[in-house]
Amino acid sequence: MSFQQNQTFEINRNGRFEQIADDLGPILYRENVVVNQIVEVVKNKGKIHGWEVKSGGSAGELSKQVLGKGDQVILDFGDHQVGYLSLHIQPVGSPPDAPLHLRLTFGEMPVEMAESFSDYDGWISSSWLQEETIHVDVLPNQLKLPRRYSFRYLKIEVLDTSPKYKVSFDNVSIEAVTSADVHNVDTFEHKDKELVEIDRVSIKTLQDCMQDVFEDGPKRDRRLWLGDLRLQAMANYATVQNNELVKRNLYQFAAVPNQDGQVSANLFVEPTLIPDDTFLFDYSLFFTTTLYDYYQATKDDEAIHDLWMTAYRQIEIGIERLDRRCIVEDDDSWWSFIDWHPELNKQGPSQAILIYALRRAIELAEILQKENEKNFMLTQLAKVEEASIKYLWKEGQGFFVSGEQEQVSWATQVWMVLAEVLDQEKSRVLLKRLLTEPPKIEMNTPYMHHHLVEALFLVGLDHEATNWMKMYWGGMLQDGGADTFWELYNPTDKEFSPYGNHLINSYCHAWSCTPTYLLRKFLK
Amino acid sequence: MSFQQNQTFEINRNGRFEQIADDLGPILYRENVVVNQIVEVVKNKGKIHGWEVKSGGSAGELSKQVLGKGDQVILDFGDHQVGYLSLHIQPVGSPPDAPLHLRLTFGEMPVEMAESFSDYDGWISSSWLQEETIHVDVLPNQLKLPRRYSFRYLKIEVLDTSPKYKVSFDNVSIEAVTSADVHNVDTFEHKDKELVEIDRVSIKTLQDCMQDVFEDGPKRDRRLWLGDLRLQAMANYATVQNNELVKRNLYQFAAVPNQDGQVSANLFVEPTLIPDDTFLFDYSLFFTTTLYDYYQATKDDEAIHDLWMTAYRQIEIGIERLDRRCIVEDDDSWWSFIDWHPELNKQGPSQAILIYALRRAIELAEILQKENEKNFMLTQLAKVEEASIKYLWKEGQGFFVSGEQEQVSWATQVWMVLAEVLDQEKSRVLLKRLLTEPPKIEMNTPYMHHHLVEALFLVGLDHEATNWMKMYWGGMLQDGGADTFWELYNPTDKEFSPYGNHLINSYCHAWSCTPTYLLRKFLK
Repeated sequence: MSFQQNQTFEINRNGRFEQIADDLGPILYRENVVVNQIVEVVKNKGKIHGWEVKSGGSAGELSKQVLGKGDQVILDFGDHQVGYLSLHIQPVGSPPDAPLHLRLTFGEMPVEMAESFSDYDGWISSSWLQEETIHVDVLPNQLKLPRRYSFRYLKIEVLDTSPKYKVSFDNVSIEAVTSADVHNVDTFEHKDKELVEIDRVSIKTLQDCMQDVFEDGPKRDRRLWLGDLRLQAMANYATVQNNELVKRNLYQFAAVPNQDGQVSANLFVEPTLIPDDTFLFDYSLFFTTTLYDYYQATKDDEAIHDLWMTAYRQIEIGIERLDRRCIVEDDDSWWSFIDWHPELNKQGPSQAILIYALRRAIELAEILQKENEKNFMLTQLAKVEEASIKYLWKEGQGFFVSGEQEQVSWATQVWMVLAEVLDQEKSRVLLKRLLTEPPKIEMNTPYMHHHLVEALFLVGLDHEATNWMKMYWGGMLQDGGADTFWELYNPTDKEFSPYGNHLINSYCHAWSCTPTYLLRKFLK
Repeated sequence: MSFQQNQTFEINRNGRFEQIADDLGPILYRENVVVNQIVEVVKNKGKIHGWEVKSGGSAGELSKQVLGKGDQVILDFGDHQVGYLSLHIQPVGSPPDAPLHLRLTFGEMPVEMAESFSDYDGWISSSWLQEETIHVDVLPNQLKLPRRYSFRYLKIEVLDTSPKYKVSFDNVSIEAVTSADVHNVDTFEHKDKELVEIDRVSIKTLQDCMQDVFEDGPKRDRRLWLGDLRLQAMANYATVQNNELVKRNLYQFAAVPNQDGQVSANLFVEPTLIPDDTFLFDYSLFFTTTLYDYYQATKDDEAIHDLWMTAYRQIEIGIERLDRRCIVEDDDSWWSFIDWHPELNKQGPSQAILIYALRRAIELAEILQKENEKNFMLTQLAKVEEASIKYLWKEGQGFFVSGEQEQVSWATQVWMVLAEVLDQEKSRVLLKRLLTEPPKIEMNTPYMHHHLVEALFLVGLDHEATNWMKMYWGGMLQDGGADTFWELYNPTDKEFSPYGNHLINSYCHAWSCTPTYLLRKFLK
């Protein structure tokens, strides 16, 4: 996710929090994964981006293939992998009298094997495209690449050898890494096998995003975003339960707020802990709600004592944005995330997220016996809820509106339900209306679809929630045989990319891993 | 140099020789070299390949330049360098939210900075073009490239950063390496400053080719060729005197002959000592002459005792190629090197080289008191010399001929003079005729020009020899400001490349380093 530039902020660094986070650095579980088969990528209009793979031979055939200048082979590791590639290269013919020049292309999806990266024209950096050109001076060679990649498919292209020799490849393998221990996760049992498969792929998605921190996507941006962390943490409690990693990441955010005490929307952890200069209304509030969820899962009193001040400060900052009506001020900048949608107005859903966060902060204040803060927030909550009904609810339309243009979007309705602004019955009616009279401003990301499904479960529309999951996450399985769930999927516009090119999309993305949480919480 | 494929040979490995060679592994002298200036490459029809560099700013300006996507800078290290590049990369702007994608291009000559490597269309491997594309995940970064490069100029291109940050570069430096200790070389003093400059550049060329072995060229092929070794050893005795490196390389050739005892034209030293499957008539004989020269320089009795059998075997193999007339058999394959010239017939010069080698082998046999071998060779020498006059000398033309078509080439005359087939006076007349009635089959490499100049000195044509050196090696200085002497230079066809493209030519090449030997031997 990107971009907002704000060069004037200062970091108010807390060394103790940073040290606690450092001490919680996770163990990485490592597994050796070998090539599953040789494949070809062929056109198929029925599949996402128009490509699918077909078997091109067993893995055992690889070492028998002799590749010269211009030759290539595509390998399939059988499932999505995050890790480090090794391969053995054997010269064939005369002693190699010139370096070997190779191009290695890593792809999460068949399209990345089929379409040339040199045609990429998106607006975010092409440097995320997973491709390396390498010279190998000495052969035979046991090559180990130093960078980590996120992929299922590997294309090896021989750019040049010399007229006197060719090469063959063997022992192509990955050291796959994750900080998730998936071996002790309870099986999710259900008569609907599609839901069981959705649960399995959700956990795989979570697993591959769990590294040194909860990353948003191991292909791109490989970074700790608060919006992703919140959802990953929920899926984590329901499955692999690496709760210390959540704690680590919360302390990291709390260690580097800006001069106003606001936590950044995302952090860089290398070369040192640095907050990005992106600050988002909703993401800062999610620090507080993620701490609340963490406490519910762990009852870690020490952590809420340590992090309360940071959590409360995010609420204060949220309240500071209220206008005289007690509605959060809108503006034309990228001030709140909500969803990837160029026309989406953020006011309504942001108002709801403030309410959603206030409710959880009030509970934390009660646990910590912070009476003044609790009373202040209770007063604010009442005002903000009242203002939401007074100014944003349109009884005639039966929808909440957002912004000066009174935009009706999916996002505003969903978040108002999650914020429990209406009672449960009215929320149920609202969501039913949403499904039958869908607004033009739709949802573009699994992140937003997650919130819809959670809202449906919250008001008891379990059947609709389950069907939506099957339509949406099941759609990724059917359209592309997803090994992990994607950053972006719009069933009505399958080529959608907010970046101008689907090659740069992430196909294993944290905010898509939540079905396992939803299924295990609401369908047990 | 390339290529001949001969997959059937076996290696007759001598472990003791290999161990002696290993024990003689040289010390590499290391020197830190920093950027001299920023440059621009501009068109100039008067310079080689039509390009020259112009100053674009002091080295100190570099760290102030901020480069974003599509920007580039060209750096000049002030002289030819062989070594390992380090550079420090500093991000400018927001924290880097995407990898940095860089292309680094290394050039010995301005043309390599000016013309795109992707247009390369030569027939030897493009993998020799010194270019890397690199992703840098963490910034700031102290980047050290693992491969060794041969260059004076470095082009840094920023392929992509992200919309949020740019980069600047500083501390760009090279760890230059050589096994030549140039600090104790006597100054060559002469009133002609051009000759002094030619001597200096010769030694720099030798220095940059002296690595773990005597390499033919540090850019390409980075390999131990017998033809180059012979000339480098001569220049070495006259200057840096790392005689142990010559010894090491002779033992390496002797350690891995084929099943017939023939030494290969060149060796690979990594991953282990491996002979190339290229066997050349002239190069094998040069094993013997190089051992002879080594003994003259060192009086190393142990080495000639050890290596005599190998040296003598090369002579026997040469003699085995004689036909009933006692003329070496010609054929259409690439059986003898002599020079890079597609139309050059190799018979005449190869016959001369056999005579040249016989004379020296006979001296070695005398030192070693190998009476039988000595007598055999004396008999053979007489026959071969007589046949040369009888069948190859054309009294009417005043030239030696070569092959069925009775080709008259520079190479045949030059080598017949070096082989002392005629007496000195007749040789002098022959060379004078050569200069005034030049044959159509000319000389294409500094390697062949070296032999002409040595022949001129040998017959006392010192003035002509000196002028030729000034015309030829001096021409490289004038046409391209050569920092080191080039693999290829033809004053009448300055774009000449035997490889189909001048981008792949080596511009620091061992066989061009001999003027220092010629000047110091003949003009002292």
